[in-house]
Amino acid sequence: MNAYSSRLVEAAVNELSRLPGIGKKTALRLALHILKKDVSFAESLGSAIIRMRQEVQFCRVCHNIADSEVCEICSNEKRNGQTICVVEDIRDVMAIENTGQYNGVYHILGGIISPMDGIGPNDLTIESLIQRVNAGNISEVIMALSTTIEGDTTNFYIYKKLRDLNVQVTTIARGIAIGDELEYADEVTLGRSILNRMPYEQTLSK
Amino acid sequence: MNAYSSRLVEAAVNELSRLPGIGKKTALRLALHILKKDVSFAESLGSAIIRMRQEVQFCRVCHNIADSEVCEICSNEKRNGQTICVVEDIRDVMAIENTGQYNGVYHILGGIISPMDGIGPNDLTIESLIQRVNAGNISEVIMALSTTIEGDTTNFYIYKKLRDLNVQVTTIARGIAIGDELEYADEVTLGRSILNRMPYEQTLSK
Repeated sequence: MNAYSSRLVEAAVNELSRLPGIGKKTALRLALHILKKDVSFAESLGSAIIRMRQEVQFCRVCHNIADSEVCEICSNEKRNGQTICVVEDIRDVMAIENTGQYNGVYHILGGIISPMDGIGPNDLTIESLIQRVNAGNISEVIMALSTTIEGDTTNFYIYKKLRDLNVQVTTIARGIAIGDELEYADEVTLGRSILNRMPYEQTLSK
Repeated sequence: MNAYSSRLVEAAVNELSRLPGIGKKTALRLALHILKKDVSFAESLGSAIIRMRQEVQFCRVCHNIADSEVCEICSNEKRNGQTICVVEDIRDVMAIENTGQYNGVYHILGGIISPMDGIGPNDLTIESLIQRVNAGNISEVIMALSTTIEGDTTNFYIYKKLRDLNVQVTTIARGIAIGDELEYADEVTLGRSILNRMPYEQTLSK
């Protein structure tokens, strides 16, 4: 006897539980929810998943997801194509876009160098970044990776590749988050925020 | 500019976030995971969801999910068709089946009477249960609903419908869970477990 009374339900539960963070119990709850809804609910969910995977493209310039060969950001002429912000994955692009503070373009690495996970420089789009800079007309590369050992390693690796090219390499500011209290900040962040202090007038103009 | 850089990804995120307990952030994480996997991953996930919803049936006897007109439990001749266990939904069937302690058949109500949620007796399969009992050859109906106000209401409603028919109505035992410590048990459960105490020898034979 099949534990789910139905091979069809069992198949759907097995597929759903292959998604990250979804175990068998959650998968079953989702499957039963889908069963309670109209057929159209399951059809539009299933076909949206399949269509996305089959038809989505990756921008040949910055490797962002796109519906065409070049993504909306790279093909937008109002954006400053001379500044490239280097990020780990697509969610970072969304986070930065949501701030409304950045008008340059991006370069999505697709991960960070992590020997523990078997990810080396060649698994990332670093070579493609060097080519973009080499092609000229790039004035600044902003590194916006996470401040982990892997992030720092990746930053340094890319910096070494870029330092002989005619481009300024910067990194996003690290410091006490706005709204955070000093006494709860970790020592490294607090220490760095004192070392990297800035003229008070500069904060007023923003 | 589309927040997800791609209308296809946006559509998939929107569909995924319509599932219970999945918000936009989780939906995006799932979508990006699907994008990283082979096309076949998305295709088997999407088609399993669609096929399940399109092809699954509900047993015409007990309303359990099934791949045919009558479910595997109802059509299994080794099971005792004279005992019906009444449960709220399909997950309860799975939970009881997993114990390996029950050899009768089931009746799935599809919910419990809950005026707050607009669920009345006619929204459940109660009439179909009465018909099964009326058709004869049923010796016992075991009520296995949750011990909430709604569960108790539903129990009582069904009991009133069944008491004039020639069938014994029982309810599953309530008491201190095996492995639980008495001092942490709630008063109602502890009180009932004293009232409904049973001969020690009976526990030895199981």
